[in-house]
Amino acid sequence: MKCDKCNREAVIFQKYSSAHLCKDHFIEDVERKIKRDIRKYRMVEKGDTIAIALSGGKDSSALLYILHKLFNNRQDIHLVAISIDEGIHGYRDKTLKRARALTEKLEVPHVIKSFEDAFGDSLDDLLTGGKACSVCGVLRKNLLNKTARENCATKLGLGHNLDDETQTILMNYLRADIDRMMRMIPNNRQTGLVPRIKPLRSIPEKEIALYTYLHDSPLDVDRCPYAPDALRNDVRSLLNDYETAHPGTKYALLKGFEKIIESLKQTHTITPVKKCTECGEPSGRSNICKTCQLLKKPSN
Amino acid sequence: MKCDKCNREAVIFQKYSSAHLCKDHFIEDVERKIKRDIRKYRMVEKGDTIAIALSGGKDSSALLYILHKLFNNRQDIHLVAISIDEGIHGYRDKTLKRARALTEKLEVPHVIKSFEDAFGDSLDDLLTGGKACSVCGVLRKNLLNKTARENCATKLGLGHNLDDETQTILMNYLRADIDRMMRMIPNNRQTGLVPRIKPLRSIPEKEIALYTYLHDSPLDVDRCPYAPDALRNDVRSLLNDYETAHPGTKYALLKGFEKIIESLKQTHTITPVKKCTECGEPSGRSNICKTCQLLKKPSN
Repeated sequence: MKCDKCNREAVIFQKYSSAHLCKDHFIEDVERKIKRDIRKYRMVEKGDTIAIALSGGKDSSALLYILHKLFNNRQDIHLVAISIDEGIHGYRDKTLKRARALTEKLEVPHVIKSFEDAFGDSLDDLLTGGKACSVCGVLRKNLLNKTARENCATKLGLGHNLDDETQTILMNYLRADIDRMMRMIPNNRQTGLVPRIKPLRSIPEKEIALYTYLHDSPLDVDRCPYAPDALRNDVRSLLNDYETAHPGTKYALLKGFEKIIESLKQTHTITPVKKCTECGEPSGRSNICKTCQLLKKPSN
Repeated sequence: MKCDKCNREAVIFQKYSSAHLCKDHFIEDVERKIKRDIRKYRMVEKGDTIAIALSGGKDSSALLYILHKLFNNRQDIHLVAISIDEGIHGYRDKTLKRARALTEKLEVPHVIKSFEDAFGDSLDDLLTGGKACSVCGVLRKNLLNKTARENCATKLGLGHNLDDETQTILMNYLRADIDRMMRMIPNNRQTGLVPRIKPLRSIPEKEIALYTYLHDSPLDVDRCPYAPDALRNDVRSLLNDYETAHPGTKYALLKGFEKIIESLKQTHTITPVKKCTECGEPSGRSNICKTCQLLKKPSN
């Protein structure tokens, strides 16, 4: 098949837009959407230091790559990559190597923090059984935020793609948690939390994979040995089935959620995040943050 | 196990409320929720004639049974049952027989309308292949509304239970159709449409089944031979899995949706339903209603 915009060979057929695109027009399309979202939600502002949460996987690598491409020549914008080493043996060591190779190639400062240094144990050791994803998620979020702040970051860039975002939206609908929904508003500011930005939120996971591949970056085929959340898996496959039957569903879900959030903003106020009475870090709705709760008594 | 409220044998354990209930306290609980919702959403008002869409299945039978129990002694409230005979051979004939038995027992007037009389063909004949559910749904809705209006009904009672409602809510989130979401507001009034009420919306499907069983009504084990919507099936099993892992999810989804609808009502207006230029019936967002569209050209 030929590209709809020129005569070259197409590398992708976007079912949701019915477009065939060649390599160059596909890359242009991905980057156009990312630039549009960055502008629309004011993700990047003059004077920003953007910390990029870099796992070394395809999403965070693509994020670092494109933010470097867009802002490398700007004197008033700084980038720093932050990687968290959870200590997952045989998995994280490999992706950290890829992360390190990319930051060296792009000459972006790179900070690596380990669970072991921060919490005294690796994830493998912290787990006394079960719930790896939720333990890991809590500790990683805590350490990412703290490290971003220590590096004077004014934004924390996350590699969440369209699939991740729509899965989270659907899970929030299921939980019916209005507060949590409202915290998904781009550029939501809370004391102690470096504002998170998600420049890839409009790019389907498959397109991020292709984008990374076309930039000669090796695709990560490794998977975290801890099984992912079973319910997120159900939501993922439901959304993928729905998208196959009705192309454009994920975009519709994202747009519908934005309309709902616009309404909620006019009638609700976001509950401010509390400060942990133990460590002083942001702690959501409870007085003691989840990290302190987890480290005090082993999860079971 | 014993009932939490008395010493009799429990017939159910409600995981979402952690309550064990005996037959009498279970029936009391179901009826209390139905009465609460009827009051809360003003589903039934003085002078109402309530048409009950009676398929003969467990949900619509339970609905007729309870509305009769609640309003039979009221001089200012009238009930009429409406059954639609789609002409599905070997299935609808059986459920219609059960419907007829129930209306005779309760002495409620009963109107039966067939697709054949109304549209000239039975569903089996109308279908030239595929999409039975959507064809059937469009024609049944049209005929139910028309028949309710012809019988001077001021309300149209539907047997949708908690499972049906939450599946629809989730599908509307997926479709991101704000207009359709807003039409789910209880007692939403539109020209030409008899306002629909759903008194069973807070009762889980399993409890309706038990309620029907405890009233010595035979449970319907027959299933419509036309396969149900595949995507609704996915949504149903996702919700059931989620409910098992997190009891109370369906109630949370219903409550969260109500909060969202409250917000949307303040910032959006419902687009009025159009009038079909062919038949004069309500036609949603298009100029020609779906029934006229379907009957003009065979679906394929």
